Amino acid sequence: MFKKIQSLFLGKALKTTELTSEKYSIVWGLPVLSSDAISSVAYACEEILMVLIPALQIAAYKPLGYVALAITVLLSILIFSYRQTIDCYPNGGGSYIVATDNLGKTPGLIAAASLTIDYVLTVAVSTCAGTAAITSAFPSLLPYKVIITVALISLLALGNLRGMKDSAKLFGIPTYLFILSILIMILTGIFKVLVLGQTPEAAVQLTEPMQDLTIVLFLRAFSAGCTALTGVEAVSDGIPNFKEPSQKNAKIVLGLLAGIVFVIFGGVSYLATMYQAVPFQDRTVVAQIAIQIFGQHSIMFYVVQATTAVILVMAANTAFADLPLLLSYLARDGYIARQFSSRGKRLSFSNGIVLLFLISSGLVIVVGANSHHLIPLYSVGVFISFTLSQFGMFKRWFRTKEGNWKHKALINGLGGTVTAITCVIIAVNKFFDGAWIIILCIPFLVLVMTRIKRHYEKVRENLKVDKEPSELIFKQKMPNHIIVPLQTINKSFIKSLNYSLVIGDSIEVYHVSTDEEQTKKLVEKYNKLGIDISLVIEQAPYRNVNETLINYVDKKQGELNKCEMLTIVMPQFTIYKWWYKILHNQTSMFLRQSFKKRRNVAVVTIPYIIHE
Amino acid sequence: MFKKIQSLFLGKALKTTELTSEKYSIVWGLPVLSSDAISSVAYACEEILMVLIPALQIAAYKPLGYVALAITVLLSILIFSYRQTIDCYPNGGGSYIVATDNLGKTPGLIAAASLTIDYVLTVAVSTCAGTAAITSAFPSLLPYKVIITVALISLLALGNLRGMKDSAKLFGIPTYLFILSILIMILTGIFKVLVLGQTPEAAVQLTEPMQDLTIVLFLRAFSAGCTALTGVEAVSDGIPNFKEPSQKNAKIVLGLLAGIVFVIFGGVSYLATMYQAVPFQDRTVVAQIAIQIFGQHSIMFYVVQATTAVILVMAANTAFADLPLLLSYLARDGYIARQFSSRGKRLSFSNGIVLLFLISSGLVIVVGANSHHLIPLYSVGVFISFTLSQFGMFKRWFRTKEGNWKHKALINGLGGTVTAITCVIIAVNKFFDGAWIIILCIPFLVLVMTRIKRHYEKVRENLKVDKEPSELIFKQKMPNHIIVPLQTINKSFIKSLNYSLVIGDSIEVYHVSTDEEQTKKLVEKYNKLGIDISLVIEQAPYRNVNETLINYVDKKQGELNKCEMLTIVMPQFTIYKWWYKILHNQTSMFLRQSFKKRRNVAVVTIPYIIHE
Repeated sequence: MFKKIQSLFLGKALKTTELTSEKYSIVWGLPVLSSDAISSVAYACEEILMVLIPALQIAAYKPLGYVALAITVLLSILIFSYRQTIDCYPNGGGSYIVATDNLGKTPGLIAAASLTIDYVLTVAVSTCAGTAAITSAFPSLLPYKVIITVALISLLALGNLRGMKDSAKLFGIPTYLFILSILIMILTGIFKVLVLGQTPEAAVQLTEPMQDLTIVLFLRAFSAGCTALTGVEAVSDGIPNFKEPSQKNAKIVLGLLAGIVFVIFGGVSYLATMYQAVPFQDRTVVAQIAIQIFGQHSIMFYVVQATTAVILVMAANTAFADLPLLLSYLARDGYIARQFSSRGKRLSFSNGIVLLFLISSGLVIVVGANSHHLIPLYSVGVFISFTLSQFGMFKRWFRTKEGNWKHKALINGLGGTVTAITCVIIAVNKFFDGAWIIILCIPFLVLVMTRIKRHYEKVRENLKVDKEPSELIFKQKMPNHIIVPLQTINKSFIKSLNYSLVIGDSIEVYHVSTDEEQTKKLVEKYNKLGIDISLVIEQAPYRNVNETLINYVDKKQGELNKCEMLTIVMPQFTIYKWWYKILHNQTSMFLRQSFKKRRNVAVVTIPYIIHE
Repeated sequence: MFKKIQSLFLGKALKTTELTSEKYSIVWGLPVLSSDAISSVAYACEEILMVLIPALQIAAYKPLGYVALAITVLLSILIFSYRQTIDCYPNGGGSYIVATDNLGKTPGLIAAASLTIDYVLTVAVSTCAGTAAITSAFPSLLPYKVIITVALISLLALGNLRGMKDSAKLFGIPTYLFILSILIMILTGIFKVLVLGQTPEAAVQLTEPMQDLTIVLFLRAFSAGCTALTGVEAVSDGIPNFKEPSQKNAKIVLGLLAGIVFVIFGGVSYLATMYQAVPFQDRTVVAQIAIQIFGQHSIMFYVVQATTAVILVMAANTAFADLPLLLSYLARDGYIARQFSSRGKRLSFSNGIVLLFLISSGLVIVVGANSHHLIPLYSVGVFISFTLSQFGMFKRWFRTKEGNWKHKALINGLGGTVTAITCVIIAVNKFFDGAWIIILCIPFLVLVMTRIKRHYEKVRENLKVDKEPSELIFKQKMPNHIIVPLQTINKSFIKSLNYSLVIGDSIEVYHVSTDEEQTKKLVEKYNKLGIDISLVIEQAPYRNVNETLINYVDKKQGELNKCEMLTIVMPQFTIYKWWYKILHNQTSMFLRQSFKKRRNVAVVTIPYIIHE
């Protein structure tokens, strides 16, 4: 039943050998891996204006152009930088891998921790913003925004559990629709003003500038706009998900991504200047522009809003496509639990997807689906990983000195320096708004991952066979000492006793007495069995039956010779209805927990099925 | 460490033989078992006036006298009735026992369910009311009322977990202080008016009566005042908790209880009439009277308020003393989980105490420590159990025809009839205020208890040895088929393999392959061991290692002869730090869960301790 439901939602199981058929073409890889980057463009312009307008008022639009230009320059540097990464890391060149490879373990882990946090925030922030777009269209849904957001995250998780190709189609089309509708908006907007000569009406009358543009203000605006660059990492991290030739395909997708970001970001900034859009209104900057161009109740206005909402949700999907992959690398290297490295029935990294679903849903519930509480935490992490990745590449060129390495090192070094500065600016600006949480979380995660690694190494050391393995195997038959605890003489006891007769010859039946009368009757019944096995009885005046048994086992264990084992034979009831299980003393479970801490005590559980 | 903290809070463990020294004398039994009944007097008078004053205004005080008289008559009937019960049931004559014994299983369970609900409500309502008294004195504590209430319940639970004698002293003194302070108030109040001739000033000027006293109004007032009678049951339920002669002591306590209730209830009603106290004020009726008698800022006013608050909390203690005992009877009879019948380290029924703590705290949190939401649910249950208990006694006299049985049957029959009518009146009046919840809960609990009983019977039937037990025991050595799953050749595998060599001779090592390369290496290593045990390898193209193993076990199981067992030998890692446990595939746990459903499959767990 459960399996049927599972396969209905997730699709049928796939064989490991079917792995290659589940990879992206350029057409479907582009929307899946670029939606994060493209969707952030939708609000990057607004973020910049939110810094500039309060200070500069009407004079804000000129620096907007410069900031946008600076960001596109940074984008170009990043694209060139990451093309180089793709060339060098055909199996996926995420910051974690590049930083580990070139800078060492700790920088690698810092990059991994930063990215992990950022992916989780991407899911939470994007779905909250997507929900906000939905509830803006249908305000009656506002009270259910937490439920809607969690439902969206669940849909994404389900889609990704189904496997990669399916999710590419499911999530790719809306990204293309968004790109298309924004392009139509840009072209129409420019056409109306430049060709038809219409004069846009400003929604808000801005005053004269209150101050001049300062370098601090410019840098703040620049760092605010840098959200447009989040998500660029995704492509180089996802190389192994591409069809062959995967490196070439990834580079093409990266180039297309840059082109789309350039056009959309530049176009929206230009329209914002032309139509004098002002943030802090009920409507977003993009919505204000769309209304001015298409009219308040036009279909195109709703299309722009709807595709914006959808692409924000799709951006969360980038994290679902990528974080499980990153976690699988970390698990393979032993920094997090092994379970994250194994593919599920449908070949996706199910555990990573489920974890991401749980944490991001939790965050959404905690902040009440209000993304404003999370935005200050966002993008610090991604710039840390950019920086580490690029300095890693920078160092690599000095090590390998391959080909045109000086030129390439320059690109990576420049990129790394610029992103490092940006990262510091973001961290300083947003420190008290919540960035401090991230600055605490990253070292904490690094510490945890280091500890996990050390633990796995200890376990391996513990289990390693030092001598020649064949020498360790018993050459002669060892004695087997068996204890069968007795409570009542019933079928399950007899089954356990019979099993003991099969596996050994040094058997003892053991009973803890809390009531003299009952024990007397038990002994009579036991003697009637007519077996030649001694019955040991101990008193438990404090009614602590388990403790008494454990003490006895410890005593017997102390009498063993080296390599001899003591075996406890216990019945294990199987009751099919779970709600009846609590009706039975969880004694055997408790005892098993205690015995597994004793290295010479083997526990045999003899199943006894209760028929209802 | 945990044990030290436990013994600090709960006291040292006690032997079963120390049980008799933990019983009540009359002096300490009275306050422990009667605080519920006595404390309800504190608000019974107010409940009556809340019905009468809106209808009758100034004319309300005369019928108050009649209602109080009717209730004291009912109390006398109940006392005589319960004295007879104590005579007949020396081991505790709670409604559950009396109803089961005389009316049958279902009436007994109805009584038990009603009482259980009522005990839980007693705890919740009384502690909420107690907290309200505290917060009335210190309004700054108002925001913390839920925390305070839960803290009070925790204290009661801890006190009761410590054991009975300690709790009797801990909880007895405040009851006596309450009785004393109310008596002082009554005497001073009467003295001031009758001897000193003072004329009390009415707090509120009442108008002339709006209507005449009707029989419906009278019955409603009567049923409201019946809360004064809750808690009478406690004494006869607690007979085995008394020192010898326990029946005689219980009857003395019951008589004293009746006397105290008579004096306090009568006295407070008389004072209310004399001082024209009016409910619906900021202050309770008792508080209004105390202010008029002692003055607003007098010490005695605060003493009355404080002892009222304390006795309300003590009333909750009656439930803590009594419900675990009732649950132990139900558990002994198999209607609820067995765990409730066993005494803890300190000889109290710990599980019942903990359950009562959890449910009542939960209720308090749900209603925000506001007892008004719970009061309509209250007292329906106790009157159902009164009725069943007395009709049970009534039927008993007709069966036994002992001594002066007609006279005794008359008393019980009268009591039963009156409480039955009262019960119907309460249920009708409070139906839509919440009594319907109780009327649904009681049959639900009865159903659950019946199902649990049936389940326990099924289990017993399943385990019962039909034939002569000695015939079932194996007379000859049976073969033992062993499967040792192999993942990696390490120390824990070798330990498991060695154990298999000890317990049997038909051994098979079994490996599930998900990666051809790794499997090849494994086989090479295995062959080097130089043992004469076959290695079975199966492929798992869908990476479902566990399923493959389980299917193989099922196949082998099918080949067994009757009574033969298959043994799976699995290593069990012990990792001391719990947070590292999640890092290891919970495979063995999952497999054990599956195998325990297979009647011929025994699972041996070989402990392997990982040293950090």
